[in-house]
Amino acid sequence: MKDTPEMIIPTYDDVVSAHERIKPHIHRTPVLTSSWLNDEIGAELFFKCENFQKAGAFKVRGASNAVFGLSDDMATRGVATHSSGNHALSLSYAAGRRGIPCNVVMPRTAPEAKKAAVRGYGGKITECEPSTSSREQVFAQVQAETGAEFVHPYNDPRVIAGQGTCSREFMEQTDGVDIIVAPIGGGGMISGTCLTLSNIAPETEIIAAEPEQADDAARSFQAGYIIADDSPQTIADGLKVPLKELTWHFVSNHVSDILTASEQEIVDAMKITWARMKIVMEPSCAVPLAIILKNKARFAGKRVGVIVTGGNVDLDKLPWLNT
Amino acid sequence: MKDTPEMIIPTYDDVVSAHERIKPHIHRTPVLTSSWLNDEIGAELFFKCENFQKAGAFKVRGASNAVFGLSDDMATRGVATHSSGNHALSLSYAAGRRGIPCNVVMPRTAPEAKKAAVRGYGGKITECEPSTSSREQVFAQVQAETGAEFVHPYNDPRVIAGQGTCSREFMEQTDGVDIIVAPIGGGGMISGTCLTLSNIAPETEIIAAEPEQADDAARSFQAGYIIADDSPQTIADGLKVPLKELTWHFVSNHVSDILTASEQEIVDAMKITWARMKIVMEPSCAVPLAIILKNKARFAGKRVGVIVTGGNVDLDKLPWLNT
Repeated sequence: MKDTPEMIIPTYDDVVSAHERIKPHIHRTPVLTSSWLNDEIGAELFFKCENFQKAGAFKVRGASNAVFGLSDDMATRGVATHSSGNHALSLSYAAGRRGIPCNVVMPRTAPEAKKAAVRGYGGKITECEPSTSSREQVFAQVQAETGAEFVHPYNDPRVIAGQGTCSREFMEQTDGVDIIVAPIGGGGMISGTCLTLSNIAPETEIIAAEPEQADDAARSFQAGYIIADDSPQTIADGLKVPLKELTWHFVSNHVSDILTASEQEIVDAMKITWARMKIVMEPSCAVPLAIILKNKARFAGKRVGVIVTGGNVDLDKLPWLNT
Repeated sequence: MKDTPEMIIPTYDDVVSAHERIKPHIHRTPVLTSSWLNDEIGAELFFKCENFQKAGAFKVRGASNAVFGLSDDMATRGVATHSSGNHALSLSYAAGRRGIPCNVVMPRTAPEAKKAAVRGYGGKITECEPSTSSREQVFAQVQAETGAEFVHPYNDPRVIAGQGTCSREFMEQTDGVDIIVAPIGGGGMISGTCLTLSNIAPETEIIAAEPEQADDAARSFQAGYIIADDSPQTIADGLKVPLKELTWHFVSNHVSDILTASEQEIVDAMKITWARMKIVMEPSCAVPLAIILKNKARFAGKRVGVIVTGGNVDLDKLPWLNT
């Protein structure tokens, strides 16, 4: 890792090491295609299915890299984090595999399915209000009490190096693409994607997809500095968190555009994927397809990679049945 | 094909020819695993995901084999069939690929999603009442009017040879299994499975899974002759049809057991698969997992193949939300 005055920026060597470290604990997820969607959009789409990943989401890559990179000494005090869901259960999963404690602070409004899964992996939950400020405050207390190692859901070089293994696999599984699209919340997956592609496929364009109702990254991108909202409301519950300095570094240097989609466009894209590709994805990972369907001309004739980030959805509360 | 006084019984050579013939028109579907389900059952499960197949179901294998095996002369008059859904849309898909007409007789109660898909592939639907007798009567009229080649959904050697390509792929993709489980309705998939495995892996046990409320195959198996119900009621709408002489030949000779599951057990297994494996499967293909969960001791310690037959489900009418 390259040290700077402000922060530690992970390098591609860290991605390669991370991949070796986490391989026993993750799936090499398949890449699926849909000729119906290809015809609909006039492009060739490749879906990297991290919804089939261990713990149901890509976040297990970064979490496992952090947990299995700890010295034995540090590991005994366990790990702790705050998360809107998938990082919480990924960290619980990884800690469980290493046999160390895991404390997570989750918004009380997080989907029950995610809370149950965290507990199922042995994680201990402390609830907070659904805002960034409450989350950080409650977390400070938990960390003070446990002395556990903080693994931030995205603003952490170990986590970003871990997420970078996803596009490394993707490039091995395909003959490369012209554009890769991933959702953006805090920016962990996008940063890992930037880190890997800027090294092994620098000609690939990277586009981030964000809900209109939580468009702080798009506004930051426009403004040239981080804009953070305290508690945006969107069905894409994994994308409510703001960029931080480390993810901003990658986003501002390597992302070519951030496009947004409305709530209805996200729900429509989610239902289309379920119906046509027969895969269960959560609202957060429908945002890339939503922006592709909305901006067909931009993607027409291109080979496009789409990172399907997770599949942890509450099957009793499907959004197209609530509207 | 081996000719007998009563019927033409397909051979494994027909499966191999079918595979060559249909390869350009089908997907080589992936085999997925779930460590959660493995732990839950104490077995090693391998899911052959025909829900990702073209037209959303394994039936496209048999339908494509029939359509692309026709002489040009026969093909001009088109094809016709009756079907509870997936065969109808698979035949429409295959006919569309060859550019010939396809007439299908469907129960008026078939899921709207399936009817829309048939029309989307260019198939022409004539509706009948939801009973075997009505279906056969209406079909006779349609066939008389069109002179089209009848492709029976399962009691057809071309269709059975096509379905046999599924377990052929499965055996190439895995190191073999001790038991393979597939749903049974009319018996087309099971017959293809019997045909292939009795030739290339005769030591593999074949178990069929059937809804309790449409258990005519289980009763036939017990009795030693075909018992057919006219209009059984089950959520597994693909499994309402009875065995016919050709599928009975394979079932009676090669299947080791037919196990049944209740409607609730089927819905529970379906929801578990969506939640844990993140794949969309229709009720009919949840029956194998339902009987495995119900008879764990029988499968414990074994390598078990499960054929996930299709994913064409009405997303607006999910069974766990209606009960």
